[in-house]
Amino acid sequence: MSKAYTVEFVNSYSTPLQELLCDPNTYFLVDPNIYRLYGGVLSKLSFGKRLILLEAVERNKTIESCEKVIDRLLANKANKKSMLVILGGGILQDVGAFVSSILFRGIRWIFFPTTLLAQADSCIGSKTSINFRKFKNLIGNFYPPSRIFIDVDFLKTLSEKDIKSGIGEILHYYLIAGSPYIDRLNKEYSDIFSDRKKLIPHIHESLRIKKRVIEKDEFDQGKRNLFNYGHTFGHALESVTGYQVSHGQAVTVGMDMANYLSFKIKLISAKQFKGMHLALCKNLPPRTWKPFPMREYIKALSKDKKNVNANLTCILTRGQGRMEKRQIPMDDRLQSGIKEYFNRLK
Amino acid sequence: MSKAYTVEFVNSYSTPLQELLCDPNTYFLVDPNIYRLYGGVLSKLSFGKRLILLEAVERNKTIESCEKVIDRLLANKANKKSMLVILGGGILQDVGAFVSSILFRGIRWIFFPTTLLAQADSCIGSKTSINFRKFKNLIGNFYPPSRIFIDVDFLKTLSEKDIKSGIGEILHYYLIAGSPYIDRLNKEYSDIFSDRKKLIPHIHESLRIKKRVIEKDEFDQGKRNLFNYGHTFGHALESVTGYQVSHGQAVTVGMDMANYLSFKIKLISAKQFKGMHLALCKNLPPRTWKPFPMREYIKALSKDKKNVNANLTCILTRGQGRMEKRQIPMDDRLQSGIKEYFNRLK
Repeated sequence: MSKAYTVEFVNSYSTPLQELLCDPNTYFLVDPNIYRLYGGVLSKLSFGKRLILLEAVERNKTIESCEKVIDRLLANKANKKSMLVILGGGILQDVGAFVSSILFRGIRWIFFPTTLLAQADSCIGSKTSINFRKFKNLIGNFYPPSRIFIDVDFLKTLSEKDIKSGIGEILHYYLIAGSPYIDRLNKEYSDIFSDRKKLIPHIHESLRIKKRVIEKDEFDQGKRNLFNYGHTFGHALESVTGYQVSHGQAVTVGMDMANYLSFKIKLISAKQFKGMHLALCKNLPPRTWKPFPMREYIKALSKDKKNVNANLTCILTRGQGRMEKRQIPMDDRLQSGIKEYFNRLK
Repeated sequence: MSKAYTVEFVNSYSTPLQELLCDPNTYFLVDPNIYRLYGGVLSKLSFGKRLILLEAVERNKTIESCEKVIDRLLANKANKKSMLVILGGGILQDVGAFVSSILFRGIRWIFFPTTLLAQADSCIGSKTSINFRKFKNLIGNFYPPSRIFIDVDFLKTLSEKDIKSGIGEILHYYLIAGSPYIDRLNKEYSDIFSDRKKLIPHIHESLRIKKRVIEKDEFDQGKRNLFNYGHTFGHALESVTGYQVSHGQAVTVGMDMANYLSFKIKLISAKQFKGMHLALCKNLPPRTWKPFPMREYIKALSKDKKNVNANLTCILTRGQGRMEKRQIPMDDRLQSGIKEYFNRLK
């Protein structure tokens, strides 16, 4: 199933979308928010019963939602040769790609990512993630789309929160790769919200970094592990705050925390920590979440699917471009390091 | 994920099983029937909480059963590096392999097939199949085991029904490949039930035929399609009889029916049909199933996941070793051909 990832940047999503509509065996899984925002174009297209709307919320990233999508596909005569076109962000991608991977032992799917997070990160990499019971992303597999169309015009209608979420992942690739683009992103940070075209080079750079790694390690056996940088600590924050913090901003906190813990065990100097903190701080979320007990956060960490035995598997750093995988005991030392970090966070 | 399939024939399953038990991160999905029959050996092994028993019945081949197995694995601290060892036939293989494929984006699994069907056929080929609502095998993917251990001693405790089911699939490979082993199998047919060692060369030949094809077409895009020979019509029979007919014997009926339909549209002569019928007839099931209306059978056929548009996708024949994929309209002609066939069947 290994493949080179090619992303097609298009001037208007409607051109390839209309072509796909001509094939009667194509089905469309669309974020209702996108359907509303782009109603001028979308409502003119004759999707008929081939349109499936699915709200892009975390609670829909379940096996039950996948079953409902399958029900809809079957009710409208989908078969082994059908194709699923997904128009939305990461959540629709997860549900739609997972459905495509298990229906009739795999049907083709095509992706029009509409969020910055999906355009600059998740659209390539093949991963699907479904929550199970209380566990985030516990179920999933690797199942790449046949084609990916990026129309940056979708960025115009994104909320600031969504842009910040995407920037969190972009920063994560920049720090992992030690990319010089990080300074540019920081300089342009406040202008981006009024001029979203400024994000285009960052989408390209982010995908370029990701692509270089995943084409060598599609199934996450080696170097791709480093992409978990910021994620282990970030996921736990998303979990304990009930997803009040967006994914990418939680990852921003997660990276800052990983750097702080790296400093505490002397992998990096105080100066290095501050340098990396400066690169991240503009994108940190305001601390408006409901306070949570530290043991809740630790419990969330302990549920991470990458953990082996009693250790926490996470990515720490020896500086920009120098991340490394570590197994750390889930002991008092870790807990006090995390507590210290949260106390420093404004 | 493509791989060469190597099967290890062992003198006693208990040796590799004991070795696997030494790894505390290994879990065991076992058919309770096997656990009872081989209790002398198995009850002495210290599985502890790592043992998961799952009854090998069709109604357990569901997403809900998979979720229960996952619950059990998680409750007992399974993680990304865990391995699932499956001891049982095709149903346990389907549930266990599918669980392994989607848990933590894939954990390793090892298979000890205990039925003739699993030893001579399903253990290689990577397919997983889960029923969904009223649809058989609608959900699934391709996910090969890391290792396969075959102990032919398991055949001793199989019922005659299970042996006949396995022989159905062996005959299917022999007819597809035009293998000379088919005459030998027919000569030895009645002796096999008292001397099950006679099945060993047939397990080897059957796997050899299957392996040759799947190593070239793992994802069922081309030649592997021919393995659906007998299956389309067989699955429908299983479905309308509520699984009173075993899989392999239903496939035997399915092949005979496919041959009859091939004769009706003049792909083969009456003589060819009779020759192939002679090769199959010993393994046909007695017609003891509850009568069903023809429209029920046609409805079951129409639900086959390989169908495209209003046509039935099936494999017909131009003679032994000469199968071909066909799309046939689901019209009166097909229906009367099937009706005729069933009327001929004693």
